[in-house]
Amino acid sequence: MKHITIIGMGLIGTSLALALRSLHEQQSPFGAVSVTGYDQNPQTTRTARGRLAIDHVAGTLEEAVQQAELVVLAPPVRAIRPLFEQLAPLLSPDTVVTDVASTKAQVCTWARELLPASTQFVGGHPMAGREQSGPEAATPELFHNAIYCLTPAPDTDEHALDTVEQLVVAVGAKPYYLDPEEHDAYVAGISHLPFLLSAALVDATGNSPGWKDMSVLAASGFRDITRLASGDVVMHRDICMTNRVALLRWIDDMTACLEHVRDYLEQDDSEQMGEFFARAREVREAWLAQREGMRPGEDALPPTPPLERPNLFGFRTLNPFGRKPPRE
Amino acid sequence: MKHITIIGMGLIGTSLALALRSLHEQQSPFGAVSVTGYDQNPQTTRTARGRLAIDHVAGTLEEAVQQAELVVLAPPVRAIRPLFEQLAPLLSPDTVVTDVASTKAQVCTWARELLPASTQFVGGHPMAGREQSGPEAATPELFHNAIYCLTPAPDTDEHALDTVEQLVVAVGAKPYYLDPEEHDAYVAGISHLPFLLSAALVDATGNSPGWKDMSVLAASGFRDITRLASGDVVMHRDICMTNRVALLRWIDDMTACLEHVRDYLEQDDSEQMGEFFARAREVREAWLAQREGMRPGEDALPPTPPLERPNLFGFRTLNPFGRKPPRE
Repeated sequence: MKHITIIGMGLIGTSLALALRSLHEQQSPFGAVSVTGYDQNPQTTRTARGRLAIDHVAGTLEEAVQQAELVVLAPPVRAIRPLFEQLAPLLSPDTVVTDVASTKAQVCTWARELLPASTQFVGGHPMAGREQSGPEAATPELFHNAIYCLTPAPDTDEHALDTVEQLVVAVGAKPYYLDPEEHDAYVAGISHLPFLLSAALVDATGNSPGWKDMSVLAASGFRDITRLASGDVVMHRDICMTNRVALLRWIDDMTACLEHVRDYLEQDDSEQMGEFFARAREVREAWLAQREGMRPGEDALPPTPPLERPNLFGFRTLNPFGRKPPRE
Repeated sequence: MKHITIIGMGLIGTSLALALRSLHEQQSPFGAVSVTGYDQNPQTTRTARGRLAIDHVAGTLEEAVQQAELVVLAPPVRAIRPLFEQLAPLLSPDTVVTDVASTKAQVCTWARELLPASTQFVGGHPMAGREQSGPEAATPELFHNAIYCLTPAPDTDEHALDTVEQLVVAVGAKPYYLDPEEHDAYVAGISHLPFLLSAALVDATGNSPGWKDMSVLAASGFRDITRLASGDVVMHRDICMTNRVALLRWIDDMTACLEHVRDYLEQDDSEQMGEFFARAREVREAWLAQREGMRPGEDALPPTPPLERPNLFGFRTLNPFGRKPPRE
């Protein structure tokens, strides 16, 4: 029996729990699993328990990590630092710790500074999410085929790496190893810069003198491009504040790009403007054509059969196209 | 019998034609209508005819406008200038001309310069569209409840205004009167700046050295915010090049906004960053809560009953919630 504890029962924490609990023990890389859940808001933990995401509700952090072989931290990113401080005296030496935060360099630094030297920490970041948040929005399928970034330190031991990689596989995701700084630079460009631009567009237009009349004309294009501006304020703020260096570089690149476009307009350079739009369209279409959730080189490998999950009536996969794997 | 000619049988032109033709003559502000279609690509006109969008296919511009009381120009915006030149000697003095282009100041200037003084021109811009383009994507419902901007000149005569306003009402849209420059400044903010940002984001990330590895991590957030970057290259270029002044101002506002965000990051100012995201979220949520397609002050007026459209089996509205209007 593998004891796994999840701290922070929001969308990601509860979805991880559901994915672990819905996996048949013969299919699970862990064998049988017992999932304990903790959230600083007891109502949230109760909701997760009500959804059968967890086996045990922990009333305190101490109780939560007492038996745990693997602890997954899934609170907002800036809550991880105080959590490390609180957990440091409570963790037993062979407990492996991982997290699911959107930025990794800062979290890995905190782990090095605050966790006991005996504790193995592996940073993680599943590239999966939904617009809705909270345990109510959780689903065991959230990580199916998703890329799951892992950012171990050079001295992370084999056992810790194996344990966290097993978690990734168990929830149906695909491990993708990166350096923490590399991870942060990448997600700053494809995730953090986008929600920042989205909010900046709303700020620039919504606070202009003409907004009252303009807003009447805004239609679906405006709605889609500003969708991320309706996201969780605290989460977005925390992500930005823990990924400042990478984000600053991307803001500069974006500003430089806008400068070029500005020049095309000022110089009435229709040709360059056309090339700019054509180039962007081409890059995006090529990206869309890429197989979703494919790691570089992965398309050369044979596909992994989906893990089977039992349902009420027996041993069946949730994926109707899945192959039945061999029984042990 | 009202003779209406549509030049340019793309999405908007063909949708206008379908909306006009599907309206019952007792309901139509025009009474019975005959729609003639012309496109420089004869195949496009044939497709529109195949969809029963038009009564007559015109082989030449001369033939197209011969009998027309109202001519609607629906080509890409930069094709309007040469069209004005070609139409000038062909138009009879009482023909009213309108267009559907996304920018208005430039088009209105061309109209003043190139059309005969006797020709009445009223600029128009329906705030409706789809991702798909061409006559195949056209639908008579495209303009239902949409805002339809009209930008007449101060000396436009009453009859021309009435005719174009009747067109707007006939296709189910709502006229919204604006100054051409005002129109261009507004749509630059809520429509042109968004697609420009979308393309600039793809340009900045997609041409960075890390793109190959980054692109694997890009998910639904990136897909949505860059959707406009997959739009029609020529249309986007032409819109930008005919709305340079307004767009330059918005690019500067956007850059200024990014400068502020940059400062919050550099100064590690979490509070200001939080306020920035909170403000954007609030503005967007208020905008979403606004009734869609409502002109300022319109919510105080009684709602307009939808126009009835005949179907194969008789006189029935396409809107299942519509009230049956009085017969004459």
